[in-house]
Amino acid sequence: MKQEEKAFQDYYPTGFDHCYGCGTSNDQGYHLKSHWDGETTVAYFLPKDYHSGGFPDSVYGGLIASLIDCHGVGTASAAAYRAEKRKMGTTPHLRFVTASLNVDYIKPTPLGTELEMRGIVIEVKDRKITVSVSLFAYGELCAKGHVIAVRLPHGAILGAK
Amino acid sequence: MKQEEKAFQDYYPTGFDHCYGCGTSNDQGYHLKSHWDGETTVAYFLPKDYHSGGFPDSVYGGLIASLIDCHGVGTASAAAYRAEKRKMGTTPHLRFVTASLNVDYIKPTPLGTELEMRGIVIEVKDRKITVSVSLFAYGELCAKGHVIAVRLPHGAILGAK
Repeated sequence: MKQEEKAFQDYYPTGFDHCYGCGTSNDQGYHLKSHWDGETTVAYFLPKDYHSGGFPDSVYGGLIASLIDCHGVGTASAAAYRAEKRKMGTTPHLRFVTASLNVDYIKPTPLGTELEMRGIVIEVKDRKITVSVSLFAYGELCAKGHVIAVRLPHGAILGAK
Repeated sequence: MKQEEKAFQDYYPTGFDHCYGCGTSNDQGYHLKSHWDGETTVAYFLPKDYHSGGFPDSVYGGLIASLIDCHGVGTASAAAYRAEKRKMGTTPHLRFVTASLNVDYIKPTPLGTELEMRGIVIEVKDRKITVSVSLFAYGELCAKGHVIAVRLPHGAILGAK
């Protein structure tokens, strides 16, 4: 699938780019990459075999929660820039963190295939953005989450590049 | 802190013990261990430095969600055995998976210290158990979660040891 070159996470300011789930500067992490696809957002991730859950041949719930969390927060950041009609990465930075995460596990998510996360922006307020994220395997909905992301105050990231 | 020798997760039946968060047979995983402490349950975990979040020097939200998830499901399993006045590990096995996970991130969870998860059993039904899990760092509440765990049908784990 054709993507813009840079993902949302590639614009996170230095010092705020260490997230294990999606930070570009975390050598050990998952490096999740989220992009716009029209009015929705999309990210893909191929779990390792050892990312297994308690149910045989399934993906463990903590990874699913992580992917929904990081894709949700990335979507919130991108939505905030869109709402201000600004390009991502321009200052002042709009960097969000998770206030609340809810995940419903609809069916076991199978290992051995790339997962697709689709984000929909539900609500944009000045400091709080709500995103719905659906997670698919083989095109089937396996989990659905809601992320409430809050914007870091400008003072917290002042001087970050 | 003195603990019973075996954790809840040590009783998970073979084939259902691969969870990355808490499975005893997952060589790569976190190996979370949960125990009773009176009427509540407790688990401890020391994140690695690379388990960092988007906010500097904080633990990443996906790990927090994982710990709450695994401790919640372990607590559900232990509570189910208690409700039946049976010892953990006796058959038929009572093995649970997550139906729904909710996490409220109250404040940034600092890296560099052992985290403490405390579980409280909220409701026990035949196939569904609700657990509240509070996560502390340096004795301060940093995140709070709710886990709804559902019991696997006996047929799904028939013959497991």
